Amino acid sequence: MKSEEWFLELVDELFPREHDFIGLSRGDDCAVLRGGSDYCVSSDLFLEGVHFRRDYFSPADIGYKGLAVNISDIAAMGAKPVAFTLDLTVPPELDDAFWRDMLKSMSMLARQNDMVLAGGDLSRAEKIGMSISVFGVGGSTGFVRRANCSFGDILFTVGDLGLARTGLMSLEADGIQARETLPAAVNAHLRPKPKVLVGTLLNAAGVKSLMDVSDGLARDLPRLLGPDLGADLTLDPSELHRDVTAYAESIGTDPAEFAVLGGEDYALLGAVSPFDAGRAESVPGFTRIGTVTKTPGIVLNGTPFTAQGFDHFSQ
Amino acid sequence: MKSEEWFLELVDELFPREHDFIGLSRGDDCAVLRGGSDYCVSSDLFLEGVHFRRDYFSPADIGYKGLAVNISDIAAMGAKPVAFTLDLTVPPELDDAFWRDMLKSMSMLARQNDMVLAGGDLSRAEKIGMSISVFGVGGSTGFVRRANCSFGDILFTVGDLGLARTGLMSLEADGIQARETLPAAVNAHLRPKPKVLVGTLLNAAGVKSLMDVSDGLARDLPRLLGPDLGADLTLDPSELHRDVTAYAESIGTDPAEFAVLGGEDYALLGAVSPFDAGRAESVPGFTRIGTVTKTPGIVLNGTPFTAQGFDHFSQ
Repeated sequence: MKSEEWFLELVDELFPREHDFIGLSRGDDCAVLRGGSDYCVSSDLFLEGVHFRRDYFSPADIGYKGLAVNISDIAAMGAKPVAFTLDLTVPPELDDAFWRDMLKSMSMLARQNDMVLAGGDLSRAEKIGMSISVFGVGGSTGFVRRANCSFGDILFTVGDLGLARTGLMSLEADGIQARETLPAAVNAHLRPKPKVLVGTLLNAAGVKSLMDVSDGLARDLPRLLGPDLGADLTLDPSELHRDVTAYAESIGTDPAEFAVLGGEDYALLGAVSPFDAGRAESVPGFTRIGTVTKTPGIVLNGTPFTAQGFDHFSQ
Repeated sequence: MKSEEWFLELVDELFPREHDFIGLSRGDDCAVLRGGSDYCVSSDLFLEGVHFRRDYFSPADIGYKGLAVNISDIAAMGAKPVAFTLDLTVPPELDDAFWRDMLKSMSMLARQNDMVLAGGDLSRAEKIGMSISVFGVGGSTGFVRRANCSFGDILFTVGDLGLARTGLMSLEADGIQARETLPAAVNAHLRPKPKVLVGTLLNAAGVKSLMDVSDGLARDLPRLLGPDLGADLTLDPSELHRDVTAYAESIGTDPAEFAVLGGEDYALLGAVSPFDAGRAESVPGFTRIGTVTKTPGIVLNGTPFTAQGFDHFSQ
C-alpha cells in the first residue's frame, strides 16, 4: 500500500459519505448516527488464517464476505442494516490492485443494502484482518430476539444447511479447482448471502425467535433454545442441497449429521408459535425442521444427537 | 485460554449487562442501543507489535489503554461515552490470569466512565489485537466537530504534548526500568487519561473545533485547520512537562519541536473564537498555543515547521 492517504482517497471514491442515518460522516474523530430509532449493533472479526485463506479467497471474496457475515447478524434481528465501521489490518506487501478489488466488492455489497461506511481505522500487520461493527434499525415490530421460544414452537430455517461446510472442505482439499467441481458449495462459503429481506419478512410475520447459523446448527440451536428446552428435528436428506448429500456420502458421513454440524451457512434459524405459523410459512425459503421439546438436548431423525460443533479454543 | 465459554463467563463477571442506553444486552445476534439521542461512533485498532509490546505493557496496561484511546475519540467530540464493543484476538498460549488482569483493568475504566460492554467477538490469532467500537452521546450543545475554525481563532490544547513520546522512547531504549527513571512519561504512554470531562466542559464553553492529538500536533493540527488555513504557534519550553524538556535536551533535540512531533498524547486540541474564549480559558488545563492564520503551514516559535509526523505506511 502506497500510503494511508492513498487508501483513504480510495475509500472516498468507492463509499459515499452521505446517508439518511448519518449526521456527521467519517473524517472527524467520530461519525454521528442520527437518533430517533433504536440501533442494533454487532461487531465481528474476519481474519486471514482463521476465517479465510488467500489461497482461494480472491480480494473481492474477502471484501464481500467480511461485510456479509456482519450483515447476517442484522438480518438475524429481523432488522435492516444502515451503517458500518471498518477496522482493517494491512500487510504492507499487498499491492494497490488488491485493496481496490477488495474495497470495490465491499462497496457493492454496501450499496445493495443501502449501507454507509461511517468510519474505521487502518494499521499494518502481518495478516489481513477486519473488524466490522454494523448498525441496523428495526421495523414497526422492533427486533426479533434469539432466546424467546417455548415448548411446542415450530423450529424453522431459511437457507441451506451444510452447504458452506461442503464448500470449505472441498476448498481445503482441492484448492481453487473446487470452484469448478462444486460451484454452489464453494460460493456458499466464499459469498454467503445475508438474508436481510427474509429476516424483515419473518419479523413482520411475527416469529418469536431468530438467529443466524454461523457455528452450525448443533452449536447454534442450543443458543436459541436456552438451557431448559430441547429440539426434535426432522431433516429429510432430500431437502438438503444435492452437493451436501453427495459430498457427505463421498466421505462416508450421514448427510443430515453433516448438515447439522456445518458452520458458516448464515442461514436463519428461528421459532414460531404453531398458532401464528401461517404467515411465516409463506416467507420464501421457510423450511420446517422440527419442534421445541421440554427436555434439553437435540434429537435428529429419531436419534439423540451428541456431536459438538466448533469451539475456537477447546481442543 | 481454557475455552470461549470460560472467557464469556469472565466477561459476565466483570462487565454488567444492564445500562440506561441498552435495550437488549450482549448475548443475542446484536445488542440494541436505545434511540432518542444521536450517537457518535468511533472504531480503533490496538495491536500488539504496532501499538503496544508485551515487554513493558502489563496485561492491565493493555486492557486500560485499548479502551482509553477509544474513549479519547468520544472526548474529542465533547461527548460522553456510554457503550462499546470489543473484538479481541487471542494467542492460545496466554494463561487465564493474563485475561483476567486485562479485562479487570478494562472493566474498571469502563465503570469509571459509566460505559457498558454491548458485545464483541473473539478469535484465536498469533498476537493480541483489539478492535473497539465506542458510542457516545452529546450534551445540550451536541457534538464539537473537528474542521470548523477560522482565521484569527485561538488554538489551544489540554494535556501534555510530547510526554507520551518521551515515555515510549524511554521504554523502547531502557525497557521496563524506564518506569523508575521517568514515571510520568511512562505513565502517559501506558495509561493515557481520556479527557472526557474537559471535553464536555469545552463543548459547553462554545469552542468551535476539537480533536484529540493521537499522531502528534505536527500531523494532527493540519487536520483541524483543513487545507486553506495555517497556524502560528508559540510553545514556551517552560510550559512543557519537565520530563519532555529534559529528555529532548538529552538527545540533542529542541524541546518544542520534540513536543510537536510527539504522538499518542491524547491531549485535546481545539480552536475557539477570540470573542468567546473567556469561558473556554477557565476550563482546567486550557493552554493557548497560538492562532489560526490565513496561510497554510505551521510556524513554530517564529520559524516555519516542516518535519512530518508519523505515517503508518509511508517509508
